[in-house]
Amino acid sequence: MRGVMKKYSGKTVSFGQVALKGGFWYAQQELVKKVTIDAVYDRFEETGRFEALKGEWKEGMPFKPHIFWDSDVTKWMEGAAYYLKKERNDILEAKLDMLIERMEKQQTEDGYLNSYFTTVEPEARFTRRLDHELYCAGHLIEGALAYYEATGKRKMLDLTIRYIDQIDRIFRIEHSAAFDTPGHQEIEMALVKLYQVTGEVRYKELAEYFIDTRGNSQKDRDTTKEDLVSFQSHLPVREQKTAQGHAVRMLYQMCAMADLALLDQEEEMTTACETLFDNIVQKRMHITGGIGSTYLAEAFTFDYDLPEITTYNETCASIALAMFSRRMWLIDADHKYADCAELALYNTMLSGMSLSGDRFFYENPLAAHPERNQFNASRKENIREHLPILERVKVFDCSCCPPNLVRTMGSIGDYMYSVSENTIYAHCYMDAEAWISLPDQEVYLRQRTEYPYAGQIDLEAGTGGDYTLALRIPGWCSSYRILVNGDPAVYTVEKGYAYLHRVWQEKDHIVLDLDMPVELVEANPKVPNLCGRVAVMRGPLTFCAEGIDNQDLPLRDIRIGDACSFEMSLEEICGRQLPVLSGRVSVRKAFDVLYRTYCGEKESVALKLIPYFAWANRGISEMNVWFIKE
Amino acid sequence: MRGVMKKYSGKTVSFGQVALKGGFWYAQQELVKKVTIDAVYDRFEETGRFEALKGEWKEGMPFKPHIFWDSDVTKWMEGAAYYLKKERNDILEAKLDMLIERMEKQQTEDGYLNSYFTTVEPEARFTRRLDHELYCAGHLIEGALAYYEATGKRKMLDLTIRYIDQIDRIFRIEHSAAFDTPGHQEIEMALVKLYQVTGEVRYKELAEYFIDTRGNSQKDRDTTKEDLVSFQSHLPVREQKTAQGHAVRMLYQMCAMADLALLDQEEEMTTACETLFDNIVQKRMHITGGIGSTYLAEAFTFDYDLPEITTYNETCASIALAMFSRRMWLIDADHKYADCAELALYNTMLSGMSLSGDRFFYENPLAAHPERNQFNASRKENIREHLPILERVKVFDCSCCPPNLVRTMGSIGDYMYSVSENTIYAHCYMDAEAWISLPDQEVYLRQRTEYPYAGQIDLEAGTGGDYTLALRIPGWCSSYRILVNGDPAVYTVEKGYAYLHRVWQEKDHIVLDLDMPVELVEANPKVPNLCGRVAVMRGPLTFCAEGIDNQDLPLRDIRIGDACSFEMSLEEICGRQLPVLSGRVSVRKAFDVLYRTYCGEKESVALKLIPYFAWANRGISEMNVWFIKE
Repeated sequence: MRGVMKKYSGKTVSFGQVALKGGFWYAQQELVKKVTIDAVYDRFEETGRFEALKGEWKEGMPFKPHIFWDSDVTKWMEGAAYYLKKERNDILEAKLDMLIERMEKQQTEDGYLNSYFTTVEPEARFTRRLDHELYCAGHLIEGALAYYEATGKRKMLDLTIRYIDQIDRIFRIEHSAAFDTPGHQEIEMALVKLYQVTGEVRYKELAEYFIDTRGNSQKDRDTTKEDLVSFQSHLPVREQKTAQGHAVRMLYQMCAMADLALLDQEEEMTTACETLFDNIVQKRMHITGGIGSTYLAEAFTFDYDLPEITTYNETCASIALAMFSRRMWLIDADHKYADCAELALYNTMLSGMSLSGDRFFYENPLAAHPERNQFNASRKENIREHLPILERVKVFDCSCCPPNLVRTMGSIGDYMYSVSENTIYAHCYMDAEAWISLPDQEVYLRQRTEYPYAGQIDLEAGTGGDYTLALRIPGWCSSYRILVNGDPAVYTVEKGYAYLHRVWQEKDHIVLDLDMPVELVEANPKVPNLCGRVAVMRGPLTFCAEGIDNQDLPLRDIRIGDACSFEMSLEEICGRQLPVLSGRVSVRKAFDVLYRTYCGEKESVALKLIPYFAWANRGISEMNVWFIKE
Repeated sequence: MRGVMKKYSGKTVSFGQVALKGGFWYAQQELVKKVTIDAVYDRFEETGRFEALKGEWKEGMPFKPHIFWDSDVTKWMEGAAYYLKKERNDILEAKLDMLIERMEKQQTEDGYLNSYFTTVEPEARFTRRLDHELYCAGHLIEGALAYYEATGKRKMLDLTIRYIDQIDRIFRIEHSAAFDTPGHQEIEMALVKLYQVTGEVRYKELAEYFIDTRGNSQKDRDTTKEDLVSFQSHLPVREQKTAQGHAVRMLYQMCAMADLALLDQEEEMTTACETLFDNIVQKRMHITGGIGSTYLAEAFTFDYDLPEITTYNETCASIALAMFSRRMWLIDADHKYADCAELALYNTMLSGMSLSGDRFFYENPLAAHPERNQFNASRKENIREHLPILERVKVFDCSCCPPNLVRTMGSIGDYMYSVSENTIYAHCYMDAEAWISLPDQEVYLRQRTEYPYAGQIDLEAGTGGDYTLALRIPGWCSSYRILVNGDPAVYTVEKGYAYLHRVWQEKDHIVLDLDMPVELVEANPKVPNLCGRVAVMRGPLTFCAEGIDNQDLPLRDIRIGDACSFEMSLEEICGRQLPVLSGRVSVRKAFDVLYRTYCGEKESVALKLIPYFAWANRGISEMNVWFIKE
């Protein structure tokens, strides 16, 4: 079939080539720009994270540096740089420069750069696998690259390279560290980026060293007292068949695996990536794209274990799942990857931030029962269970998620397009302009859409040319139409992409009209707690009910009948126009006793659903995603 | 109405006046007699509990005594004595005598008697509220009374009285202990028994002291670092409105409250008992009579919190719930108390012991998902969740439940009858003879029944007389017939008891025929996890499905339709003839993906249910009580 992707041939159209013009993500980026960047900056300032960068902390001083603080800072810098790349902002740039100066001063003679180890435990450098040292170095790379690409200034990149060269020498050349591979993966994919920007092969080799050594190192086994599965060190990566252990680490590892599989066109690595992806998406992922079912080691658990109230579903883990999915569609254009990315981004990632942009969730449960949290909080600490909090907070001790949100939204345009030879892939739909380089031509595309609130996508080919346009047909969409200049288009579909080939003329107008009905979704019968229940979805959005909208009905008792149809309307919630679904459902009539012979008496009630990502913005109230299907 | 109970007028017909002749409880008692008594004895012997009684342990020796060991031993002795009372057994009696001799030798000059404190921390006597010192003293009393009543031998009772007199002096007279009331209630109700057997008012006064001081003592507040709610010390007992904290302690306290309310005919205390009972039974009790929803402090949680997999439901807590209920029907003959006692005894208590009689559960969950336990066990200890075990074990470190089962089954006849003036109350139905003393006459009653497997109870009045017979109509029974000598009886019903008054003739034959259909039971909509589900009950028995009987169908996906009817048959399970229910139900057809648009395709399958108490006797397999109602 003409234009269908050759495996391993995809290239991302960077967000730098994309300009959001309106719609969902534009508004989201504006919010981050106006509120979140500064909110996170202020919290980090208050908590001493920036002070720590000076490397001047001594015992007795406040704000003792923490092992992951550097990564919080550089992840925020990365995010801020993405906005700087789009729009000059001297104040923001000055803040970044100030931080870079601190790093420069802190960096030791030999190139080492880590606020915690330099000030708190200089003797422990490169000895403790689980203490985020290389993880921080990874985020340093990503921050430095982002800032370099945004401003052209090399200072941060140069000092980063000095540090990374030291790491390369100690780990890959001399093997003189106490361990062989990072306890928290991240640096691997950062090194691939560094290789791609600098062209220095040794960074790719170091990434490969970390990836290939993982699970093969006796040194790692000796130095890790914790169980190896939690840190994906139980098996060589190519032999890992199920998503295990700490969810963010697993997915960051998978990102690097996908990067290397793409670069090397390696079938074995690709198969490992596909196997892990399928294990997650078909057995270990919530309907919100949330992953990591337990707070205990922030980890994956076992197939079909998807608890609703206690699940961990870290914001960062869903971001990482989207990052991995985006890498996979460069290897193989299958709509399942973008389906997954959208599920993660539109639901769990966005749930991680308040509608006001300045408060955050680390954990994103599928149901909230405030009474349980209240009872738990009333107990002494030693007899409390761990429960996700039910209101977002301004800052966490472990504050990886807020800056991760900043950088992901700042570069959300990365999720729009990729190219493969003469084919342009449209993956996630956004209202934006894009300037896309094909081998022999530059293409300007203007996409207009209300997606994900409406299923129509208008594409205007601003410049002509002979190329193939591959439009993703999402897995949730069972009927759609494609028109070119008002006429039904000629296309073929492969793995969920509609391939339209023609010699495009300027102003050609393509309409992709995805029917986006409200759907009831069931989970596999092997998920014990979801049996008998359905979730309500529309497009990539998962909906939920909150007590505050539903007169405190017992939300778990709500039954959606076959005759129920939901009406969508836009409603203002916390200053945002959000799609709201309304329908008639039933609920058992209230009764007093605890148990009685089943009687089946129900009453019809109105149910109002809001997008899952918008939950918990109006105080604490019950929340539920999975409803009884009657 | 003639014969209806005057409040506070009930007296138990002791199990000593009752002889089980056949049927359910006879078989159960035989099992305990033949297997359990010795099995528990052997485990206690092996683990050094009996050795500890010598009071000779010193640092460096094996079997360091534990703070609750004495209570395990004396609870076993109490149980063994109940069997001795019924049937001479020289070997068993010799074992008891040997233990009593050890106690006698161990007892210190001043009367103190506690293996742990005497050998391990003599300086800590009466200083640590939470270390089970008075709890052990309570069980010592109950053991001593049982042995005295079984054999007439006073040695154990005498040494107990010496010890209790010391406790009375130190706590009630001198207030010289570091705390005022027991951290683990038990001694209060034991003191009431001691008062009743010895006639010594000071024991009742000490019981009252402990009960009245609870929640009123500054000393207790000062010495308890744990939270006061966990140990029911947050409020004076009469002001406690909800069941809080450690479930066994709560219920043991309630037993003493009921004992004192009855003795003193105290309305305020009675109201407190009723309020607590209603809170438990209407808001905090599983359909199996299991109580205590969290292992964290083995405690009650909050209204309508009845988790299925993680609930604690300690065997001892359900025994204590039955003990309390039995006390309440002496205050007020309302069938709800015996309904509750039966639920607790027939389901959770019996689940506490294997069908083989020698293995025990401490926790009795409502559902078992072996994969979850398996995954959990595969993790390092520091990242495991607490889950109930899924196979019974021979002994626990904390082994309160096994001897509690022995003593409860040994005295199960206590649950049959009570008298109030000239009325005989039949509460729990068992196949047994009874010799009952009424104010002016002795009555012999012969009850024949297959209860709880069948609903017909035949009563023969062996001796004549002018008295009222009050037959409990269980709450689960909506239709029944009462015949006297083949003719419909004349009776009135009050609070679930049918009162039959007449001048009975020898050989009068009363038939109570309770319809006992299989019932589907629903829980209040406020119980989040039980919405949309029903439990299957027949009479007082809750049924469950196990994977082993159901081809490993996904048990949580089983749907019971309106048309489903269950057939009962008797089937051999582990050598026991047990009632088994079979019915056609539906389950979704298996599919591969994790999520899909709801399609509703189901298939009809056979479902086999066994009594809940018989679960987990054939290896580890999935188990489920609450099924989807379609």
